[in-house]
Amino acid sequence: MMLQKILTLTTPTRGCYNITAEIDNVIKEHAIKTGLCHVFIHHTSASLIISENADPDVLIDLETFMAKIVPDGDPLWIHADEGPDDMPAHIRSVITQNNLTIPITAGKIGLGTWQAVYLWEHRTHQYQRQITITLQS
Amino acid sequence: MMLQKILTLTTPTRGCYNITAEIDNVIKEHAIKTGLCHVFIHHTSASLIISENADPDVLIDLETFMAKIVPDGDPLWIHADEGPDDMPAHIRSVITQNNLTIPITAGKIGLGTWQAVYLWEHRTHQYQRQITITLQS
Amino acid sequence: MMLQKILTLTTPTRGCYNITAEIDNVIKEHAIKTGLCHVFIHHTSASLIISENADPDVLIDLETFMAKIVPDGDPLWIHADEGPDDMPAHIRSVITQNNLTIPITAGKIGLGTWQAVYLWEHRTHQYQRQITITLQS
Repeated sequence: MMLQKILTLTTPTRGCYNITAEIDNVIKEHAIKTGLCHVFIHHTSASLIISENADPDVLIDLETFMAKIVPDGDPLWIHADEGPDDMPAHIRSVITQNNLTIPITAGKIGLGTWQAVYLWEHRTHQYQRQITITLQS
Repeated sequence: MMLQKILTLTTPTRGCYNITAEIDNVIKEHAIKTGLCHVFIHHTSASLIISENADPDVLIDLETFMAKIVPDGDPLWIHADEGPDDMPAHIRSVITQNNLTIPITAGKIGLGTWQAVYLWEHRTHQYQRQITITLQS
Repeated sequence: MMLQKILTLTTPTRGCYNITAEIDNVIKEHAIKTGLCHVFIHHTSASLIISENADPDVLIDLETFMAKIVPDGDPLWIHADEGPDDMPAHIRSVITQNNLTIPITAGKIGLGTWQAVYLWEHRTHQYQRQITITLQS
Protein backbone atom coordinates (compact mmCIF):
# COMPACT_ATOMS: atom_id res chain seq x y z
CA MET A 1 0.00 0.00 0.00
CA MET A 2 1.24 3.46 -0.89
CA LEU A 3 -0.47 6.77 -0.17
CA GLN A 4 0.54 10.39 -0.42
CA LYS A 5 -0.47 13.48 1.48
CA ILE A 6 0.68 17.08 1.09
CA LEU A 7 1.37 19.31 4.09
CA THR A 8 1.68 23.07 3.78
CA LEU A 9 3.54 24.83 6.56
CA THR A 10 4.31 28.48 7.24
CA THR A 11 7.78 29.31 8.52
CA PRO A 12 7.87 32.82 10.02
CA THR A 13 11.66 33.14 9.90
CA ARG A 14 14.94 31.19 9.76
CA GLY A 15 15.07 28.33 12.25
CA CYS A 16 14.15 24.71 13.01
CA TYR A 17 10.45 23.80 13.33
CA ASN A 18 9.51 20.48 14.94
CA ILE A 19 7.11 18.70 12.55
CA THR A 20 7.15 15.28 14.21
CA ALA A 21 3.53 15.48 15.41
CA GLU A 22 2.26 16.51 11.95
CA ILE A 23 3.96 13.49 10.39
CA ASP A 24 2.86 11.10 13.13
CA ASN A 25 -0.74 12.28 12.73
CA VAL A 26 -0.72 11.26 9.06
CA ILE A 27 0.56 7.80 10.04
CA LYS A 28 -2.11 7.36 12.74
CA GLU A 29 -4.89 8.68 10.48
CA HIS A 30 -4.17 5.82 8.11
CA ALA A 31 -3.72 3.22 10.89
CA ILE A 32 -0.44 1.88 9.52
CA LYS A 33 1.25 -0.62 11.84
CA THR A 34 4.55 -1.48 10.10
CA GLY A 35 6.01 0.38 7.16
CA LEU A 36 8.01 3.34 5.98
CA CYS A 37 7.26 7.04 6.03
CA HIS A 38 8.92 9.17 3.37
CA VAL A 39 9.04 12.94 3.83
CA PHE A 40 10.06 15.23 0.98
CA ILE A 41 10.39 19.02 0.92
CA HIS A 42 9.76 20.70 -2.43
CA HIS A 43 12.22 23.58 -1.95
CA THR A 44 15.92 24.35 -2.30
CA SER A 45 16.23 26.85 0.54
CA ALA A 46 14.65 24.87 3.38
CA SER A 47 15.50 21.34 4.45
CA LEU A 48 14.62 18.40 6.68
CA ILE A 49 16.74 17.10 9.53
CA ILE A 50 16.39 14.68 12.42
CA SER A 51 17.97 16.13 15.54
CA GLU A 52 17.84 16.30 19.33
CA ASN A 53 14.36 17.06 20.70
CA ALA A 54 15.03 18.12 24.30
CA ASP A 55 17.32 21.13 24.57
CA PRO A 56 16.46 24.22 22.47
CA ASP A 57 20.12 25.26 22.73
CA VAL A 58 20.93 22.53 20.20
CA LEU A 59 18.86 24.42 17.61
CA ILE A 60 20.69 27.66 18.42
CA ASP A 61 24.06 25.93 18.06
CA LEU A 62 23.00 24.46 14.69
CA GLU A 63 22.38 28.03 13.48
CA THR A 64 25.73 29.15 14.89
CA PHE A 65 27.49 26.35 13.02
CA MET A 66 25.85 27.26 9.72
CA ALA A 67 26.52 30.98 10.22
CA LYS A 68 30.19 30.08 10.66
CA ILE A 69 30.68 27.77 7.68
CA VAL A 70 28.19 29.43 5.27
CA PRO A 71 28.08 33.13 6.23
CA ASP A 72 25.23 35.27 4.93
CA GLY A 73 26.42 38.00 2.60
CA ASP A 74 29.83 36.42 2.00
CA PRO A 75 31.32 38.18 -1.08
CA LEU A 76 32.28 34.68 -2.30
CA TRP A 77 28.69 34.07 -3.45
CA ILE A 78 27.79 35.20 -6.97
CA HIS A 79 24.12 34.18 -6.61
CA ALA A 80 22.66 36.88 -4.35
CA ASP A 81 19.55 38.13 -6.21
CA GLU A 82 17.24 37.55 -3.28
CA GLY A 83 19.55 38.92 -0.61
CA PRO A 84 22.44 37.91 1.64
CA ASP A 85 20.67 34.69 2.82
CA ASP A 86 19.90 33.47 -0.74
CA MET A 87 22.95 31.36 -1.63
CA PRO A 88 23.62 30.33 1.99
CA ALA A 89 20.08 28.87 2.06
CA HIS A 90 20.85 26.72 -1.00
CA ILE A 91 24.15 25.50 0.48
CA ARG A 92 22.60 24.76 3.91
CA SER A 93 19.94 22.71 2.08
CA VAL A 94 22.50 20.74 0.08
CA ILE A 95 24.57 19.76 3.14
CA THR A 96 21.49 18.69 5.12
CA GLN A 97 18.52 16.69 3.70
CA ASN A 98 15.52 17.32 1.50
CA ASN A 99 14.17 13.80 1.89
CA LEU A 100 13.95 11.49 4.91
CA THR A 101 12.67 7.94 5.21
CA ILE A 102 11.65 6.88 8.70
CA PRO A 103 10.42 3.48 9.92
CA ILE A 104 6.82 3.08 11.02
CA THR A 105 6.84 0.63 13.91
CA ALA A 106 4.01 -0.39 16.25
CA GLY A 107 1.63 2.05 14.57
CA LYS A 108 3.70 5.21 14.95
CA ILE A 109 6.76 7.06 13.70
CA GLY A 110 9.76 4.94 14.70
CA LEU A 111 12.09 7.61 16.07
CA GLY A 112 14.54 7.20 18.92
CA THR A 113 13.76 8.71 22.34
CA TRP A 114 15.73 11.88 21.65
CA GLN A 115 14.91 12.33 17.97
CA ALA A 116 12.53 14.79 16.33
CA VAL A 117 11.98 15.74 12.69
CA TYR A 118 12.56 19.41 11.94
CA LEU A 119 11.79 21.55 8.93
CA TRP A 120 14.84 23.82 8.84
CA GLU A 121 13.95 27.15 7.23
CA HIS A 122 17.11 28.73 5.87
CA ARG A 123 15.62 32.00 4.58
CA THR A 124 15.22 34.90 6.99
CA HIS A 125 11.77 35.94 5.71
CA GLN A 126 8.40 34.19 6.05
CA TYR A 127 7.69 31.38 3.59
CA GLN A 128 5.05 28.76 2.82
CA ARG A 129 6.68 25.37 2.49
CA GLN A 130 5.20 22.27 0.88
CA ILE A 131 6.04 18.75 2.04
CA THR A 132 4.85 15.48 0.51
CA ILE A 133 4.48 12.53 2.87
CA THR A 134 4.36 9.09 1.27
CA LEU A 135 3.39 6.14 3.46
CA GLN A 136 4.16 2.53 2.56
CA SER A 137 3.03 -0.61 4.31
CA MET B 1 5.49 -3.17 -7.80
CA MET B 2 9.26 -2.68 -7.73
CA LEU B 3 11.58 -2.38 -10.70
CA GLN B 4 15.20 -1.44 -11.17
CA LYS B 5 17.10 0.17 -14.00
CA ILE B 6 20.78 1.04 -14.27
CA LEU B 7 21.95 4.32 -15.83
CA THR B 8 25.55 4.87 -16.89
CA LEU B 9 26.65 8.47 -17.23
CA THR B 10 29.92 10.07 -18.30
CA THR B 11 31.10 13.08 -16.31
CA PRO B 12 33.79 14.99 -18.22
CA THR B 13 35.09 16.91 -15.20
CA ARG B 14 34.17 18.14 -11.70
CA GLY B 15 30.75 19.79 -11.54
CA CYS B 16 26.99 19.32 -11.21
CA TYR B 17 25.14 17.54 -14.03
CA ASN B 18 21.35 17.82 -14.22
CA ILE B 19 19.95 14.27 -14.48
CA THR B 20 16.28 15.10 -13.84
CA ALA B 21 15.15 14.28 -17.38
CA GLU B 22 16.95 10.91 -17.37
CA ILE B 23 15.16 9.94 -14.13
CA ASP B 24 11.79 11.25 -15.28
CA ASN B 25 12.10 9.27 -18.52
CA VAL B 26 12.43 6.03 -16.55
CA ILE B 27 9.28 6.91 -14.58
CA LYS B 28 7.30 7.72 -17.75
CA GLU B 29 8.58 4.63 -19.59
CA HIS B 30 6.97 2.52 -16.87
CA ALA B 31 3.78 4.63 -16.68
CA ILE B 32 3.85 4.92 -12.89
CA LYS B 33 1.22 7.29 -11.51
CA THR B 34 1.85 7.39 -7.76
CA GLY B 35 4.90 6.00 -6.03
CA LEU B 36 8.49 6.56 -5.04
CA CYS B 37 11.64 6.85 -7.11
CA HIS B 38 14.90 5.83 -5.44
CA VAL B 39 18.18 6.95 -6.98
CA PHE B 40 21.48 5.47 -5.82
CA ILE B 41 25.02 6.26 -6.99
CA HIS B 42 27.53 3.41 -6.73
CA HIS B 43 30.59 5.58 -6.04
CA THR B 44 32.32 7.33 -3.14
CA SER B 45 33.70 10.31 -5.05
CA ALA B 46 30.54 11.53 -6.79
CA SER B 47 27.19 12.25 -5.19
CA LEU B 48 23.55 13.17 -5.72
CA ILE B 49 21.93 16.41 -4.69
CA ILE B 50 18.68 18.25 -5.27
CA SER B 51 19.31 21.92 -5.86
CA GLU B 52 18.16 25.06 -7.65
CA ASN B 53 17.49 24.56 -11.37
CA ALA B 54 17.38 28.12 -12.74
CA ASP B 55 20.59 30.05 -12.14
CA PRO B 56 23.90 28.38 -13.15
CA ASP B 57 25.67 30.65 -10.66
CA VAL B 58 24.26 28.47 -7.86
CA LEU B 59 26.34 25.57 -9.18
CA ILE B 60 29.47 27.76 -9.29
CA ASP B 61 28.85 28.87 -5.71
CA LEU B 62 28.41 25.25 -4.58
CA GLU B 63 31.91 24.54 -5.95
CA THR B 64 33.27 27.64 -4.23
CA PHE B 65 31.81 26.50 -0.93
CA MET B 66 33.35 23.03 -1.22
CA ALA B 67 36.72 24.45 -2.32
CA LYS B 68 36.67 26.55 0.84
CA ILE B 69 35.71 23.91 3.40
CA VAL B 70 37.42 20.88 1.75
CA PRO B 71 40.42 22.27 -0.17
CA ASP B 72 42.09 20.08 -2.79
CA GLY B 73 45.66 19.20 -1.87
CA ASP B 74 45.29 20.19 1.79
CA PRO B 75 48.30 18.69 3.62
CA LEU B 76 45.79 17.54 6.28
CA TRP B 77 44.71 14.62 4.05
CA ILE B 78 46.71 11.39 4.38
CA HIS B 79 44.75 9.63 1.61
CA ALA B 80 46.08 11.25 -1.59
CA ASP B 81 47.08 8.31 -3.82
CA GLU B 82 44.96 9.48 -6.73
CA GLY B 83 45.87 13.15 -6.48
CA PRO B 84 44.90 16.35 -4.67
CA ASP B 85 41.16 15.86 -5.39
CA ASP B 86 41.07 12.27 -4.06
CA MET B 87 40.22 12.73 -0.36
CA PRO B 88 38.21 15.94 -0.95
CA ALA B 89 35.98 13.92 -3.33
CA HIS B 90 35.26 11.37 -0.57
CA ILE B 91 34.48 14.11 1.97
CA ARG B 92 32.25 16.05 -0.45
CA SER B 93 30.35 12.79 -1.07
CA VAL B 94 29.89 12.08 2.63
CA ILE B 95 28.48 15.55 3.42
CA THR B 96 26.07 15.45 0.46
CA GLN B 97 24.00 12.38 -0.61
CA ASN B 98 24.58 9.09 -2.38
CA ASN B 99 20.90 8.12 -2.30
CA LEU B 100 17.74 10.12 -2.85
CA THR B 101 14.09 9.11 -2.67
CA ILE B 102 11.68 11.33 -4.57
CA PRO B 103 7.87 11.13 -4.79
CA ILE B 104 6.24 10.12 -8.06
CA THR B 105 3.03 12.13 -8.32
CA ALA B 106 0.60 12.46 -11.23
CA GLY B 107 2.80 10.25 -13.42
CA LYS B 108 6.05 12.20 -13.10
CA ILE B 109 8.91 13.04 -10.77
CA GLY B 110 7.40 15.03 -7.89
CA LEU B 111 9.94 17.86 -7.61
CA GLY B 112 9.21 21.44 -6.65
CA THR B 113 9.22 24.17 -9.31
CA TRP B 114 12.82 25.17 -8.63
CA GLN B 115 14.27 21.73 -7.91
CA ALA B 116 16.47 19.56 -10.13
CA VAL B 117 18.44 16.39 -9.40
CA TYR B 118 22.16 16.69 -10.02
CA LEU B 119 24.94 14.16 -10.20
CA TRP B 120 27.79 16.04 -8.54
CA GLU B 121 31.11 14.80 -9.87
CA HIS B 122 33.81 15.56 -7.31
CA ARG B 123 36.85 14.28 -9.25
CA THR B 124 38.56 16.60 -11.71
CA HIS B 125 39.08 13.93 -14.42
CA GLN B 126 36.52 12.17 -16.63
CA TYR B 127 34.64 9.24 -15.09
CA GLN B 128 31.86 6.80 -15.93
CA ARG B 129 29.30 6.76 -13.13
CA GLN B 130 26.69 4.10 -12.47
CA ILE B 131 23.31 4.90 -10.92
CA THR B 132 20.56 2.44 -9.98
CA ILE B 133 17.00 3.71 -10.16
CA THR B 134 14.38 1.72 -8.24
CA LEU B 135 10.73 2.54 -8.84
CA GLN B 136 7.96 1.56 -6.43
CA SER B 137 4.23 1.92 -6.90
CA MET C 1 6.64 -7.44 1.23
CA MET C 2 8.02 -5.37 4.10
CA LEU C 3 9.88 -6.62 7.17
CA GLN C 4 11.80 -4.97 9.96
CA LYS C 5 14.70 -6.10 12.09
CA ILE C 6 16.51 -4.26 14.89
CA LEU C 7 20.29 -4.42 15.25
CA THR C 8 22.05 -3.35 18.43
CA LEU C 9 25.71 -2.43 18.08
CA THR C 10 28.34 -1.37 20.60
CA THR C 11 30.67 1.45 19.57
CA PRO C 12 33.73 1.55 21.85
CA THR C 13 34.75 5.08 20.88
CA ARG C 14 34.45 7.77 18.18
CA GLY C 15 35.06 6.42 14.69
CA CYS C 16 33.57 4.68 11.64
CA TYR C 17 32.46 1.05 12.01
CA ASN C 18 31.84 -1.01 8.87
CA ILE C 19 28.36 -2.57 9.21
CA THR C 20 27.96 -3.77 5.60
CA ALA C 21 28.15 -7.47 6.50
CA GLU C 22 25.55 -7.11 9.28
CA ILE C 23 23.12 -5.50 6.81
CA ASP C 24 23.85 -7.96 4.02
CA ASN C 25 23.24 -10.86 6.42
CA VAL C 26 19.71 -9.62 7.11
CA ILE C 27 19.06 -9.43 3.35
CA LYS C 28 20.38 -12.96 2.75
CA GLU C 29 18.52 -14.38 5.77
CA HIS C 30 15.27 -13.31 4.10
CA ALA C 31 16.31 -14.43 0.60
CA ILE C 32 15.32 -11.16 -1.06
CA LYS C 33 16.36 -10.97 -4.71
CA THR C 34 15.31 -7.45 -5.81
CA GLY C 35 14.22 -4.68 -3.52
CA LEU C 36 15.29 -1.90 -1.21
CA CYS C 37 17.03 -1.96 2.14
CA HIS C 38 16.36 0.94 4.48
CA VAL C 39 18.72 1.53 7.41
CA PHE C 40 17.81 3.96 10.19
CA ILE C 41 19.81 4.93 13.27
CA HIS C 42 17.76 5.95 16.32
CA HIS C 43 20.25 8.49 17.69
CA THR C 44 21.28 12.11 17.22
CA SER C 45 24.98 11.73 18.02
CA ALA C 46 25.89 8.87 15.68
CA SER C 47 25.16 8.62 11.98
CA LEU C 48 25.26 6.44 8.87
CA ILE C 49 27.45 7.05 5.85
CA ILE C 50 28.50 5.19 2.72
CA SER C 51 32.20 5.66 2.08
CA GLU C 52 35.35 4.12 0.67
CA ASN C 53 36.00 0.58 1.90
CA ALA C 54 39.65 -0.03 1.04
CA ASP C 55 42.00 2.46 2.67
CA PRO C 56 41.66 3.03 6.44
CA ASP C 57 43.31 6.44 5.96
CA VAL C 58 40.05 7.68 4.48
CA LEU C 59 38.38 7.13 7.85
CA ILE C 60 41.18 9.03 9.60
CA ASP C 61 40.81 11.92 7.16
CA LEU C 62 37.04 12.01 7.71
CA GLU C 63 37.73 12.54 11.43
CA THR C 64 40.31 15.22 10.63
CA PHE C 65 37.77 17.03 8.47
CA MET C 66 35.11 16.99 11.18
CA ALA C 67 37.61 18.04 13.87
CA LYS C 68 38.43 21.04 11.69
CA ILE C 69 34.91 22.23 10.83
CA VAL C 70 33.18 21.20 14.09
CA PRO C 71 35.83 21.40 16.83
CA ASP C 72 35.16 19.67 20.15
CA GLY C 73 34.94 22.11 23.03
CA ASP C 74 34.49 25.15 20.80
CA PRO C 75 33.26 27.99 23.08
CA LEU C 76 30.68 28.73 20.33
CA TRP C 77 28.53 25.80 21.51
CA ILE C 78 26.00 26.55 24.26
CA HIS C 79 24.85 22.90 24.51
CA ALA C 80 27.74 21.18 26.32
CA ASP C 81 26.07 19.31 29.20
CA GLU C 82 27.61 15.97 28.27
CA GLY C 83 31.07 17.29 27.50
CA PRO C 84 33.12 18.88 24.70
CA ASP C 85 31.99 16.25 22.12
CA ASP C 86 28.25 16.71 22.87
CA MET C 87 27.19 19.45 20.43
CA PRO C 88 29.81 18.49 17.80
CA ALA C 89 28.23 14.99 17.76
CA HIS C 90 24.80 16.48 16.97
CA ILE C 91 26.22 18.69 14.20
CA ARG C 92 28.25 15.85 12.65
CA SER C 93 25.04 13.78 12.61
CA VAL C 94 23.03 16.53 10.94
CA ILE C 95 25.55 17.06 8.11
CA THR C 96 25.85 13.31 7.43
CA GLN C 97 22.92 10.84 7.37
CA ASN C 98 20.69 9.06 9.86
CA ASN C 99 18.86 7.08 7.19
CA LEU C 100 20.08 5.32 4.06
CA THR C 101 18.17 3.42 1.39
CA ILE C 102 20.24 0.97 -0.64
CA PRO C 103 19.18 -1.20 -3.59
CA ILE C 104 18.98 -4.97 -3.15
CA THR C 105 20.09 -6.49 -6.45
CA ALA C 106 20.78 -10.12 -7.32
CA GLY C 107 20.07 -11.21 -3.74
CA LYS C 108 22.53 -8.94 -1.98
CA ILE C 109 23.22 -5.37 -0.93
CA GLY C 110 23.68 -3.39 -4.16
CA LEU C 111 26.76 -1.34 -3.28
CA GLY C 112 29.51 -0.28 -5.69
CA THR C 113 32.88 -2.04 -5.60
CA TRP C 114 34.46 0.54 -3.31
CA GLN C 115 31.45 1.30 -1.11
CA ALA C 116 30.78 0.21 2.47
CA VAL C 117 28.15 1.28 4.99
CA TYR C 118 29.58 2.73 8.19
CA LEU C 119 28.03 3.56 11.52
CA TRP C 120 29.88 6.76 12.42
CA GLU C 121 30.04 7.14 16.20
CA HIS C 122 30.55 10.80 17.04
CA ARG C 123 30.79 10.54 20.83
CA THR C 124 34.16 9.74 22.38
CA HIS C 125 32.80 7.28 24.98
CA GLN C 126 31.32 3.79 24.52
CA TYR C 127 27.68 3.62 23.43
CA GLN C 128 25.04 1.06 22.47
CA ARG C 129 23.42 2.08 19.19
CA GLN C 130 20.14 0.81 17.79
CA ILE C 131 19.49 0.51 14.06
CA THR C 132 16.24 -0.54 12.36
CA ILE C 133 16.57 -2.31 9.03
CA THR C 134 13.46 -2.40 6.84
CA LEU C 135 13.50 -4.63 3.78
CA GLN C 136 11.09 -4.21 0.86
CA SER C 137 10.63 -6.47 -2.13
